[in-house]
Amino acid sequence: MENIEKTIAEIVMQVIEGINAEGGKSSCDGCKSPCGSSCEVPVGVSNRHIHLSRGDVETLFGAGYELTPMKELSQPGQYACKETLTIIGPSLRPIENVRVLGPVRGASQVEISKTDSYTLKVKPPVRESGKIAGSSPITIVGPKGVVTLSEGCIIANRHIHMSLEDGARFGVKDNDYVTVDVEGTRRTRWYDVQVRVHKDFRLEMHVDTDDANAVGIGNGCKVKVVKD
Amino acid sequence: MENIEKTIAEIVMQVIEGINAEGGKSSCDGCKSPCGSSCEVPVGVSNRHIHLSRGDVETLFGAGYELTPMKELSQPGQYACKETLTIIGPSLRPIENVRVLGPVRGASQVEISKTDSYTLKVKPPVRESGKIAGSSPITIVGPKGVVTLSEGCIIANRHIHMSLEDGARFGVKDNDYVTVDVEGTRRTRWYDVQVRVHKDFRLEMHVDTDDANAVGIGNGCKVKVVKD
Repeated sequence: MENIEKTIAEIVMQVIEGINAEGGKSSCDGCKSPCGSSCEVPVGVSNRHIHLSRGDVETLFGAGYELTPMKELSQPGQYACKETLTIIGPSLRPIENVRVLGPVRGASQVEISKTDSYTLKVKPPVRESGKIAGSSPITIVGPKGVVTLSEGCIIANRHIHMSLEDGARFGVKDNDYVTVDVEGTRRTRWYDVQVRVHKDFRLEMHVDTDDANAVGIGNGCKVKVVKD
Repeated sequence: MENIEKTIAEIVMQVIEGINAEGGKSSCDGCKSPCGSSCEVPVGVSNRHIHLSRGDVETLFGAGYELTPMKELSQPGQYACKETLTIIGPSLRPIENVRVLGPVRGASQVEISKTDSYTLKVKPPVRESGKIAGSSPITIVGPKGVVTLSEGCIIANRHIHMSLEDGARFGVKDNDYVTVDVEGTRRTRWYDVQVRVHKDFRLEMHVDTDDANAVGIGNGCKVKVVKD
């Protein structure tokens, strides 16, 4: 290690220069479908997150605890909470700072990526949110207690939220499946994308970080529903 | 934290049960294209890795150092080395245990995923291996020294290695681009897949961990070259 010491200062300088040269994480990095182009559906990238039942909120945070809304999400009534939790599986390698989303639901659900599943050593199915029967067990650790779900860990399917008007415009109804083309930095077609149509929904396609990173897109990029 | 202590033993038991229930990481998890099916091109998933020049081997490991071949890779003459290194970028969040691949090359190159790029805070282009002009700077830390590449960090493009015979069979020549369909757990089409034809190549499609995890495939899964 004799050369390490004398290069520390050099590394720090290079790293600082790198920060200036590289900038931070941005949306639409290199993407050929920037906001404002003619593409049709804006994308929202879902990082790993947790939905909690009222009972599990109290186990994890204490009796009578109420989640603290921090930021509204694109779909009306949904919000990111101030609270984060740690999840752990058979690997014993925890993933920290997993965001809780509100409001509370009937059953708790942990949505992770395939990449996360290798860290945790769980094998969640690809599912529509809310369809947790037979999905993976997972343990959630909070400041006041621990919850082990016997099922509830899933990888979310690709889906598009649409209003009734957008459903009519695209010629689809709730629970139809469509095909989507993505430019990004590695051009890709996503098959079997579930459409969710509801009067309160706003047009947005939700993908997880694996899908977003594979194609090199971020929040605000747009994708195209195509005739397959 | 009053409930944490009494649940530690419970968690450990649940985790141990989980290990038995979940098993380890496996290839073709849930994939509809298992080995032996009628699909046409086997997949090899490339995790992040480093190619080194002779000069950089000596800076990182010491004068006269020779890399230690550990495992042959699918393409003849290519091998994984015993040696691993740490890479670091502007985020100051290092990624450890990055495998060195041999043999040495004319110029060092670090291949990472988009997911890694967010950890490191670098913005590598999607590139063919070896095309590093103008790619991202990255710092490599070894046991005897440090190398900062002014360029050399890339995200590898999707590509298929083929022998001359396979090239003829698929009707493609070196540097053609093809379209590939993947079943996996989230059905996907990959456009713009570069074909590399060489007499010494063995048929295999190389994708990185982001692409593999997005579609839920692993080593040994098969994908189909399609007419676009």
